[in-house]
Amino acid sequence: MSNAEIGLIGLGTMGAALALNIADKGFDIAVWNRTTETTREFHKSAGDLSDRITPTETLEDLVRALKSPRAIILMVPAGAPVDDQIKALRPLLDDNDMIIDAGNANFHDTNRRMQDAGELPFLGIGVSGGEEGARFGPSIMGGGKREHWDRVAHILEAISAKHKGTPCATWMGEAGAGHFVKAVHNGIEYADMQMIAEVYGIMRDGLGMDNAAIAETFAKWDDGPLRSYLIEISGKVAAAVDPETGKPMLDVIVDAAGQKGTGRWTAIEAQHLAAAIPAIEAAVVARNLSSQREERAAGEALFGAAPHHIAHDVLSLDALEEALIAGKILCYAQGFGMIEKASDTYGWALPLPAIAEVWREGCIIRSDMLDDMATALRENPERNLMMASGFADRLKHTHNALRNVVAQAALHGLAVPALSSGLAYFDAMRTARGTANMIQGQRDFFGAHGFARVDGGEGHHGPWGN
Amino acid sequence: MSNAEIGLIGLGTMGAALALNIADKGFDIAVWNRTTETTREFHKSAGDLSDRITPTETLEDLVRALKSPRAIILMVPAGAPVDDQIKALRPLLDDNDMIIDAGNANFHDTNRRMQDAGELPFLGIGVSGGEEGARFGPSIMGGGKREHWDRVAHILEAISAKHKGTPCATWMGEAGAGHFVKAVHNGIEYADMQMIAEVYGIMRDGLGMDNAAIAETFAKWDDGPLRSYLIEISGKVAAAVDPETGKPMLDVIVDAAGQKGTGRWTAIEAQHLAAAIPAIEAAVVARNLSSQREERAAGEALFGAAPHHIAHDVLSLDALEEALIAGKILCYAQGFGMIEKASDTYGWALPLPAIAEVWREGCIIRSDMLDDMATALRENPERNLMMASGFADRLKHTHNALRNVVAQAALHGLAVPALSSGLAYFDAMRTARGTANMIQGQRDFFGAHGFARVDGGEGHHGPWGN
Repeated sequence: MSNAEIGLIGLGTMGAALALNIADKGFDIAVWNRTTETTREFHKSAGDLSDRITPTETLEDLVRALKSPRAIILMVPAGAPVDDQIKALRPLLDDNDMIIDAGNANFHDTNRRMQDAGELPFLGIGVSGGEEGARFGPSIMGGGKREHWDRVAHILEAISAKHKGTPCATWMGEAGAGHFVKAVHNGIEYADMQMIAEVYGIMRDGLGMDNAAIAETFAKWDDGPLRSYLIEISGKVAAAVDPETGKPMLDVIVDAAGQKGTGRWTAIEAQHLAAAIPAIEAAVVARNLSSQREERAAGEALFGAAPHHIAHDVLSLDALEEALIAGKILCYAQGFGMIEKASDTYGWALPLPAIAEVWREGCIIRSDMLDDMATALRENPERNLMMASGFADRLKHTHNALRNVVAQAALHGLAVPALSSGLAYFDAMRTARGTANMIQGQRDFFGAHGFARVDGGEGHHGPWGN
Repeated sequence: MSNAEIGLIGLGTMGAALALNIADKGFDIAVWNRTTETTREFHKSAGDLSDRITPTETLEDLVRALKSPRAIILMVPAGAPVDDQIKALRPLLDDNDMIIDAGNANFHDTNRRMQDAGELPFLGIGVSGGEEGARFGPSIMGGGKREHWDRVAHILEAISAKHKGTPCATWMGEAGAGHFVKAVHNGIEYADMQMIAEVYGIMRDGLGMDNAAIAETFAKWDDGPLRSYLIEISGKVAAAVDPETGKPMLDVIVDAAGQKGTGRWTAIEAQHLAAAIPAIEAAVVARNLSSQREERAAGEALFGAAPHHIAHDVLSLDALEEALIAGKILCYAQGFGMIEKASDTYGWALPLPAIAEVWREGCIIRSDMLDDMATALRENPERNLMMASGFADRLKHTHNALRNVVAQAALHGLAVPALSSGLAYFDAMRTARGTANMIQGQRDFFGAHGFARVDGGEGHHGPWGN
């Protein structure tokens, strides 16, 4: 039978979930895994959906099971496994058959694979939302030739998350554009999580709140402008009780954050693009320092613990909420700024409003605010998000709270690297006359690098007499 | 005549200065430049030193003019020109002759060239201090085989800067170790300059001081713990008057800082190493934002200028000085931390105390404090500099001033990204119980990533019930 609409290779957690999602939406799908046993187990466990799933034991069988022109999704580990799989699969396909890499590829790899593919159809799609998202509706960021995207868009849109009925699956641009946008998403996710952790730290160590009060605060915020998946789960994490000890779950978890390197990779890319994403960089540094537990304990022994208790009349929970709103806007302004830089640098026309839309549901950073961001970016295509309609007003109303939070945290010994980097970004971007004239003076003094004059002209030198 | 002790290729600004320095120290040197006219001009302009300089018109002549075994310094633009020059030169040399790349190579390139050279002698040396340094005594960071360094060490030490008689020229390790250490130097230079610019901004916009008062303050600080080349020239830059307009020079210089990408490159390397250098990252971001002048002006129009005038009883000049001391220590702690990471990652045994020593004179970041850092790093080989003897005490005495500066800057709308990132680093490193438990809770909630428990064990999951 050659009638499956789409094929999928790689039945790991994400691949299996995506295959079930596809079958669930009414598409016949043929699947293959390197280990046949895994394929059989998967098919058996698919329940009602197994009728729509054709398990295959060889790549040849997989290819034969598909309608022509074929489309096959790869969901294998990023890196060499993707290249190996393409190498094994491509000779079995017709010239019009399409390979879709839905894994966590570095977009440079996707660019290369697209180039290697030449006229042969190839898509690189970023799929966000973890296992749950893959199973019930992820956010999908597509890259490659538009005509190839259009061939499978009906499937990808059907399986994607929906925002009030609109699919969160969008073609972002040529080549690695989809995987690039996914990378920026991951960087923003780092910063979003870090800012929440900073605010949690202020509540715990600065305001002396217990976990129940912290959980309640997050739950309340989830009913306001901060409404988002990450705020929602932060409240649930803070509310959870450890079944083993009966202690609050948060107090049982070691304070050393893991990372799979996605935030770091976004930071490297930003440096190459000369894009300013200080909140994301701060979040990567924070995870790094979190893993140095012994050194941090030595530091506390040496310098003493931070003095607790910021008085509530000095710093209110409302101010904390406003500070987080401001920090979040500034972090997204940086992320969208990076996307714009990539558009210019790589000759993409990355659709900023559509990116905000595709992130509204399905992915980890989904939030109500992204809907407003989409509107603002559509109405102000040339503007930094922090100066766009709606968001400039929100910043006007919240930046003083952010100031107060950063100041109180500084005075009370609480580390708020992402929030303070956001404030520094805001203040740099709202200062017409900055301080880099000093840097230019120094550079000209020691290296004769030259400077521009405020009254015109480049390459001037100072009368240093050195 | 085959009697010159050393050869040099590339008579640009740096190469010419280095050649004069070598001749000045009593070594016979043969030089060659792609353009013979440049070689002739250089020789003519060498004055008394011309007797020690043999100008040559072909590479063959250069090789013939040198004593065997030969040593030839390349001072050509980094990148392809170095490879081209090696390709042209190597066939003319004997197996025991040495090529020394003294340019601004990326250390990965130096690693590769060292590998390509195999048993053929090759050194990569970082030379810091600009034209002035190259002419009268630079800081020299060597990389390659120790036995090759030893062959030319007498020349490199003779031409280097001296700290109380000790040469600032040291073998750092195998392969690209010298160019790597130079890169970290450049990153620290960025952060050092940025923190000075931030303090300048507080004096100018926060305390309302004029340039003369600012110049006087830097001059005063240059007589204290901050004594350093960068503080010295900052005072001179602030004191300088524009001959064209009679205005203070600083007020004439555009506030958009250039960059040749060296700070950015250090930031990329830090990400690859998972090293935490937030102050350097903040400095790179600050230069980036400084170049967005139009957007910053739009930002000021939209959000209003920062309110001036921090009262002097709220923030004193002494507090500013102490904050800069703290910020500087924390920045160097990060830089040395990055060097340690590289040692582990690349299998080098980079000599931290010797690195501090080699930076004491000749290079842009030279300072009195580096002498104390060398001592502290020697006495505390296993410690983060911020916890090392001497520096822990300095931080104990200054971190509250840094807190106050960051807090007042935040409240008054003055961007201090590097100083505030330093404070966040300090507070993270002196907090035994951080806030990454929240991040680990979130990661386990949405991605089942698992977490370690404070009562032992890895890979645990929470009772999220999602």
